[in-house]
Amino acid sequence: MKKIGVILSGCGFLDGAEIQETVLTLLAIDRAGAEAVCLAPDMQQHHVVNHLTGEIMAGEVRNVLAESARITRGAITVLNGIDLPEIDALVLPGGYGVAKNLSDFAFNGVGCQVNPDVAAAVQACYDAGKPLGFICIAPVIAAKVLGKESIELTIGNDPETAEALEALGAKHIDCPVWNTVVSSRGAVVSTPAYMLGPTIGEVAKGIEKLIGDIVRLI
Amino acid sequence: MKKIGVILSGCGFLDGAEIQETVLTLLAIDRAGAEAVCLAPDMQQHHVVNHLTGEIMAGEVRNVLAESARITRGAITVLNGIDLPEIDALVLPGGYGVAKNLSDFAFNGVGCQVNPDVAAAVQACYDAGKPLGFICIAPVIAAKVLGKESIELTIGNDPETAEALEALGAKHIDCPVWNTVVSSRGAVVSTPAYMLGPTIGEVAKGIEKLIGDIVRLI
Repeated sequence: MKKIGVILSGCGFLDGAEIQETVLTLLAIDRAGAEAVCLAPDMQQHHVVNHLTGEIMAGEVRNVLAESARITRGAITVLNGIDLPEIDALVLPGGYGVAKNLSDFAFNGVGCQVNPDVAAAVQACYDAGKPLGFICIAPVIAAKVLGKESIELTIGNDPETAEALEALGAKHIDCPVWNTVVSSRGAVVSTPAYMLGPTIGEVAKGIEKLIGDIVRLI
Repeated sequence: MKKIGVILSGCGFLDGAEIQETVLTLLAIDRAGAEAVCLAPDMQQHHVVNHLTGEIMAGEVRNVLAESARITRGAITVLNGIDLPEIDALVLPGGYGVAKNLSDFAFNGVGCQVNPDVAAAVQACYDAGKPLGFICIAPVIAAKVLGKESIELTIGNDPETAEALEALGAKHIDCPVWNTVVSSRGAVVSTPAYMLGPTIGEVAKGIEKLIGDIVRLI
């Protein structure tokens, strides 16, 4: 059975992984007859946000790996502990956790740094020709790590984020929520998801297409 | 557009709502052309469980409404504040939060009490002939509130929980994960979901069927 790594960044779109995108990714992988191998770095979240009020909860501390495990019912592995050769492809769902925990894009924009374990996993898969999938805001990770390769990516149609992707060396392609962009420069697929929304049903279409593309490219 | 209330109990299957079941419920509602109205009581969780280790995090305090809002991207209403006449149906996803926050079934079994706002919402919908859906462990709420009506319910095939449902006055029907039980005594539908599992794809089939049944019964 094909194994698809899924890197999570917490549990909740304001400070971690976008929960709906993550579950839709796991659903699409299962329905495609593949196996999801969920991964997350063992690190503290940048901060914790109250998802009812949108306010930062001062003094609250949560761990990315333990919170990610909520979505996966405990089935998760520390990212730096994974045997990457056993993974056939790698997918990153979105959520601010990508831009706050897996990187600091939310704070430093094009000057961002990517968590070394995440960057190493993305680079290793790319170098091995293993398909990579980036959902929602996650293409910023692809642009930062692989930007020099002029990868075609989409984050939907947000001009500011698209500009940042291009500044990092990637080529941004406008794309509707139900569709994907498959790069001509390597097996890299992206879909806008909740960068566009607006409904879970529309987001599901794009994610299902992305996983279908990934499985075909393995 | 038909409005379906969805009562959540937190965010994570060990101390709150089962995240995957909740997202699959929201997806099925959207795909059925209905609107989800997410609801949760504004109360502290019974406790917080580390989903990586399964251990209780002593001293950690989380709020059911604020944590539920993680799954719904902030779109949630306090349960006691909802205008029930505006809801056409009501669905409860599972997770231990149902048995720890919305009731104390996890601790007191057949001697359990149900949160008064949850009990009132279930009873009001039942009395008004509005369809009710119970997923995974949530049928214990139906059995406690409506047990005297001899409602047919399923939690899959777990003998101990099935016995508890019957002790509360309901009638338990064994059911596979992809199917639902529709009560002959009222518009009450249930599906086993992660009481059986094992995969998200199988759980999705049962939840999609449950939402289909609910929409037809409105």
